Amino acid sequence: MTLYDFMGSGNGYKVRLLLAQLGLSYELVECDILKGETRTPEFLQKNPNGRIPTLQLEDGSHLAESGAILWYLAEGTPFAPADRKTRAETLQWMFFEQYSHEPYIAVVRYWRHFLGKLSPLQELDLPERRRKGYDALEVMERHLEARPFFVASRYGLADIALYAYTHVAHEGGFDLARYPNVNGWLARVAEQPRYVSMDRKPY
Amino acid sequence: MTLYDFMGSGNGYKVRLLLAQLGLSYELVECDILKGETRTPEFLQKNPNGRIPTLQLEDGSHLAESGAILWYLAEGTPFAPADRKTRAETLQWMFFEQYSHEPYIAVVRYWRHFLGKLSPLQELDLPERRRKGYDALEVMERHLEARPFFVASRYGLADIALYAYTHVAHEGGFDLARYPNVNGWLARVAEQPRYVSMDRKPY
Repeated sequence: MTLYDFMGSGNGYKVRLLLAQLGLSYELVECDILKGETRTPEFLQKNPNGRIPTLQLEDGSHLAESGAILWYLAEGTPFAPADRKTRAETLQWMFFEQYSHEPYIAVVRYWRHFLGKLSPLQELDLPERRRKGYDALEVMERHLEARPFFVASRYGLADIALYAYTHVAHEGGFDLARYPNVNGWLARVAEQPRYVSMDRKPY
Repeated sequence: MTLYDFMGSGNGYKVRLLLAQLGLSYELVECDILKGETRTPEFLQKNPNGRIPTLQLEDGSHLAESGAILWYLAEGTPFAPADRKTRAETLQWMFFEQYSHEPYIAVVRYWRHFLGKLSPLQELDLPERRRKGYDALEVMERHLEARPFFVASRYGLADIALYAYTHVAHEGGFDLARYPNVNGWLARVAEQPRYVSMDRKPY
């Protein structure tokens, strides 16, 4: 398999982390999203939506969207639950992450950490994005009150999906110190077997 | 089952459409999101993220996020594919919808159709949201070039997820006339057995 990715991307890191934990080997092709390398005609052949991560499967076809890639890779392994309700709860947190977490926590981090200067729209939008990012962290903090992991008391896809941008939220200026349950969970994720950090390449 | 929903919501309509097509009966509890009825302490007990649709399951627990609810209901039926790759492709389009389609097409519709007056931030943000909405429609138009439905040439969850806000995109001022493939697909979805319109209540 070949993973088209950008090392600074949390969405890409989700896939890299799971690939490492599954012990799967793959080729990494880095695409610099800051230089528009995912919007070239060649890349759009692989993913018409022009985004990383995009995974080329064994049969040569391409799969996009981190959440879909995670399920493809995890199906039939302990990282993906088997029963209907637990699967749905895992999906609930993965959709929560993409809709109510990533657009705020990851986007603010991208603006602060990767862009030099914000546009007037971004400057005006920043306080609301930050507020909604904290809203997402509050939801996580409450859910983790009496749970070691997000679903069914065991580490799995929901944790991988939420960990990626939460553990680097400080790079977007988010203060995680006020969320003890989130911090405990972040530490538990980092203690999982075959854990790799965000900057670790597969070679 | 009890569905907490707002009739104007495309995310809710996805669930109502699938419930009708599966022939499942349910109680509908309408929540006026314009009056903050999903942010009350009582509602937050059901869904700490304060959003509709939220489905109360047979066992009394609650499931949120339209995509997760769709999978919960469709599992084991013809609406959800069975093989690993087709399942992942379905998820790809459902995550595409929530990340690259809904925040632009649905949000612009919400602003124009449900809010009276836009804030300065919304006014400034509108052109970019509209542009990204059209980007999503372009991706759909190209994908439907030689395909009757989004995944595996048959109607399923990906179509339901994308249909909900696409078929009312004109309420956000989007001009769908320039997308013949999308229009053909919209017509095919509306011809499916047990199809119900967005304003149809289950009683």
